[in-house]
Amino acid sequence: MKIGVLGTGMVGTALATRLAAAGHEVRMGAREATNESATKWASGRKNASNGTFEDAARFGEIVVNATGGTVSLEVLKQAGAKNLAGKVLIDVANPLDFSKGYPRLSVCNDDSLGEQIQRAYPEARVVKALNTLNADLMLDPNGLGTTDHALFMAGDDAAAKSTVRELLQSFGWKQIHDVGGISGARGMEMMLIGWLGAMKAVGNARFNWKVVTPA
Amino acid sequence: MKIGVLGTGMVGTALATRLAAAGHEVRMGAREATNESATKWASGRKNASNGTFEDAARFGEIVVNATGGTVSLEVLKQAGAKNLAGKVLIDVANPLDFSKGYPRLSVCNDDSLGEQIQRAYPEARVVKALNTLNADLMLDPNGLGTTDHALFMAGDDAAAKSTVRELLQSFGWKQIHDVGGISGARGMEMMLIGWLGAMKAVGNARFNWKVVTPA
Repeated sequence: MKIGVLGTGMVGTALATRLAAAGHEVRMGAREATNESATKWASGRKNASNGTFEDAARFGEIVVNATGGTVSLEVLKQAGAKNLAGKVLIDVANPLDFSKGYPRLSVCNDDSLGEQIQRAYPEARVVKALNTLNADLMLDPNGLGTTDHALFMAGDDAAAKSTVRELLQSFGWKQIHDVGGISGARGMEMMLIGWLGAMKAVGNARFNWKVVTPA
Repeated sequence: MKIGVLGTGMVGTALATRLAAAGHEVRMGAREATNESATKWASGRKNASNGTFEDAARFGEIVVNATGGTVSLEVLKQAGAKNLAGKVLIDVANPLDFSKGYPRLSVCNDDSLGEQIQRAYPEARVVKALNTLNADLMLDPNGLGTTDHALFMAGDDAAAKSTVRELLQSFGWKQIHDVGGISGARGMEMMLIGWLGAMKAVGNARFNWKVVTPA
């Protein structure tokens, strides 16, 4: 599948790398087509190319928002509404804000980044997913030595969620909990603050949630 | 141990019942000493008594706040600062607010109920705990047919957290993640909105979180 990955940071790079390695054609998008990280990432790599946010969004049948949550809306504006219309837009971003000196969310409780994106791009088929764990594990569930742990997804478009579910299953995910419409992004994003607490307890980011039900 | 449980709802009743059954002396506190639920709960039950919030707080070596999060500060005022001073105060409450017609938190992100309580009662040794799962499971980890799932706790007083950890372990809890100081209550409370999403996916409240680390 053709996938546009917006963002050249740890999350974008981890996702683009595994998607390309799995045989998807991936275009990594950045503010500038000459972005050094993206150019270096694509150079000599199979199934890989890079360009502007607009290029990547136009290229992708699926578009992944892997930008920092506080700049996502601006990035998607550069990607262009017409390049997102009708497409599955996987929103991986967390609206993490460090401007006050401690981790908080720039939007939460009565709204979420996932909802803001869906409202701003009503023709995109937004699915919140993959924001609840470390980038390295997002497409490598076996990275924990077991696939007995969970992902969540939220979105208003059932067919889009099926597409995302199939994509994630192709990477080995077994437990994908559908938490409902895009307003479910609130809980998925608010869990990030709980995730930071768990990280403090565990001592590193190499862990994931599981939803344990009766045996 | 003598334990005062503030609150006569599902959470207070579930906790008080299991604490008394385990041999602790429990006094359930309510607004009025004649509270019908508390009187009925205590009647003929071993290790059980009831009274006002003030009675229960004075009675307990440990005090449990099992009231609704939006009334907790008012309840603790009735319990009385001098009855909480020096004591371990286990804050189980979630500041869930339905006044807007959907579940949200009345405080989050830059503050938490746990922190508000600790600030209001600086001499109490507040430990946020048990707010991340269903009342029936709080002191019955085996209720899921396995103890392979997790609790979290946050608090500024290390000795208080040790006391809470031992109490929880006595009920069979194996995985208790210390997420740090009382500001860790933010993440623990914000996870509640994620918990409501997971409940939608699971179909009922009989589940719990686990933090999965590398096998």
